[in-house]
Amino acid sequence: MRDDALDIPSYEDMLAAHDRIRPHIRCTPVRVSDYLNDLTGASLFFKCENFQEPGAFKVRGAANAVFGLNDEQARRGVATHSSGNHASCLSYAAMRRGIPCNVVMPHTAPQAKKDTVRRYGGQITECEPSTTSREATFAQVQAATGGDFVHPYNDPRVIAGQGTCSREFIEQTDGLDSVVAPIGGGGMVSGCCLTLSTLAPETQIIAAEPEQADDAYRSFKAGHIIADDAPKTVADGLLVPLKERTWHFVSRHVTDILTASEQEIIDAMKLAWKHLRIVVEPSSAVPLATVLKNPDRFAGKRVGIIITGGNVDLDRLPWLGSA
Amino acid sequence: MRDDALDIPSYEDMLAAHDRIRPHIRCTPVRVSDYLNDLTGASLFFKCENFQEPGAFKVRGAANAVFGLNDEQARRGVATHSSGNHASCLSYAAMRRGIPCNVVMPHTAPQAKKDTVRRYGGQITECEPSTTSREATFAQVQAATGGDFVHPYNDPRVIAGQGTCSREFIEQTDGLDSVVAPIGGGGMVSGCCLTLSTLAPETQIIAAEPEQADDAYRSFKAGHIIADDAPKTVADGLLVPLKERTWHFVSRHVTDILTASEQEIIDAMKLAWKHLRIVVEPSSAVPLATVLKNPDRFAGKRVGIIITGGNVDLDRLPWLGSA
Repeated sequence: MRDDALDIPSYEDMLAAHDRIRPHIRCTPVRVSDYLNDLTGASLFFKCENFQEPGAFKVRGAANAVFGLNDEQARRGVATHSSGNHASCLSYAAMRRGIPCNVVMPHTAPQAKKDTVRRYGGQITECEPSTTSREATFAQVQAATGGDFVHPYNDPRVIAGQGTCSREFIEQTDGLDSVVAPIGGGGMVSGCCLTLSTLAPETQIIAAEPEQADDAYRSFKAGHIIADDAPKTVADGLLVPLKERTWHFVSRHVTDILTASEQEIIDAMKLAWKHLRIVVEPSSAVPLATVLKNPDRFAGKRVGIIITGGNVDLDRLPWLGSA
Repeated sequence: MRDDALDIPSYEDMLAAHDRIRPHIRCTPVRVSDYLNDLTGASLFFKCENFQEPGAFKVRGAANAVFGLNDEQARRGVATHSSGNHASCLSYAAMRRGIPCNVVMPHTAPQAKKDTVRRYGGQITECEPSTTSREATFAQVQAATGGDFVHPYNDPRVIAGQGTCSREFIEQTDGLDSVVAPIGGGGMVSGCCLTLSTLAPETQIIAAEPEQADDAYRSFKAGHIIADDAPKTVADGLLVPLKERTWHFVSRHVTDILTASEQEIIDAMKLAWKHLRIVVEPSSAVPLATVLKNPDRFAGKRVGIIITGGNVDLDRLPWLGSA
């Protein structure tokens, strides 16, 4: 049932998104580790979205937006502001459709992120690292290009796309007691809510957040959106606040939000690299950190953890003290 | 057809091994990367043996040896000398059967390797880091325990077990023009020869070796085994020489042996971490290094690369200059 005021995506929108994006994404594998199971007393399943070609789940929502455009809009392309995985995933999806993608990024963004966007054909317009500059610059770019604005998470097409991940996950695991996903703006968590509330309503949805950027946790407790100004955490994919569409899902369907400290996140990241032997970015380690921190809650359960991305600066690993 | 003089395993031995070990190993997934395909002009398929529970393909041969023992021999357990993945994989297989595993390791072996063997219940006897001390210590241990000696590669049960990897690989990819695997003692390469010479005789078998430990390359050119005394390379899984059973396969079925420099190996390792987002040990990066170095040879081909293992000291990464 669509919520018309907010344009909230429906389960059918998620199914349509899956059909639309299937040629452009990977059905990512699920990893297990006897070692991590013994350590936690739980049966852990890790959905490896870091294995998407551009290295993050965000290709799902981006591809749904890009391939859902009509031909006329597609000619003008898409546009967004992001200094993270959404920018490269949107560029990647646009490249696959052969349409323009304009991205506004702060000039302070890491060179590696800019390089990835450009590798996928994205056009970067740099701004100052402030909200004012970003919004003004984005308005200019959008006016000049007519590109369709694809918000990193507060967009019904994006949420419907992200929802395809937990659909695969439930099918691959034959059911889970809970799914734990990191929460920043809430795009992936909203996608889980959208899909699981229909497909597996008995599965708990747990969001995992850095203590040092716990605005979703505080929003959840307060019952309304609280946005922080400039949180600082190693989990650099989780800096942004909830918006009205993701709040819609989080406030209705999330069972709980758990938090972890910076050191707990770094320890969990290293543990995942060592025992799953996959490259996981700090944001993606927050769920494992919260599971390790709350053993009584997860022991004996079938727990799905979404590894949201694997884009890391390999020259600056947080446990080596150089990050 | 079994070669009785050398006790060479047959294709049927490999099939029997697969049935025997299936409950104890993972059918590891195959990763692809559009980026690496564009870079090489080839269609590359990476078989992720680093995703075996103990982190290396060697669990296949070890499990075949352990689970093929009769009950009487099993009570006395198994024994080996190794400071690498074979020691932990044999301990792991023995733990799963609930039998003793004795491992002779030089006292200079990294603490992390000793910890892994002990975690899987392996009993370590330390020796001096010399062949004389290792052989004398091993003879004592074997006399005292009666453990069945499972050589890291020059054992027909081990070679038959390793052969199950390329069987899965061919089935998962619907055929390959060539398979490239690293070569040290030649266990994995011999397994590929055993399996592919029957299952996919048109598939070329290419071995990849560090320039600084190129004894297999020189053996291949000379037509007889050449063993180096103490080669030094970052690819620390590839230091050992061919033996008669692996030479049997290498000399008959390998198409070519290609080599890569230390820097080429490290660059390929970092590239695999970045674009496949998997943790790959240096030895496992040698095949990708040789493919990058010989583009004309592989362009336009379907090339299978065996990622043999992912056990790495995450505090000492070779590209950070701390290894």
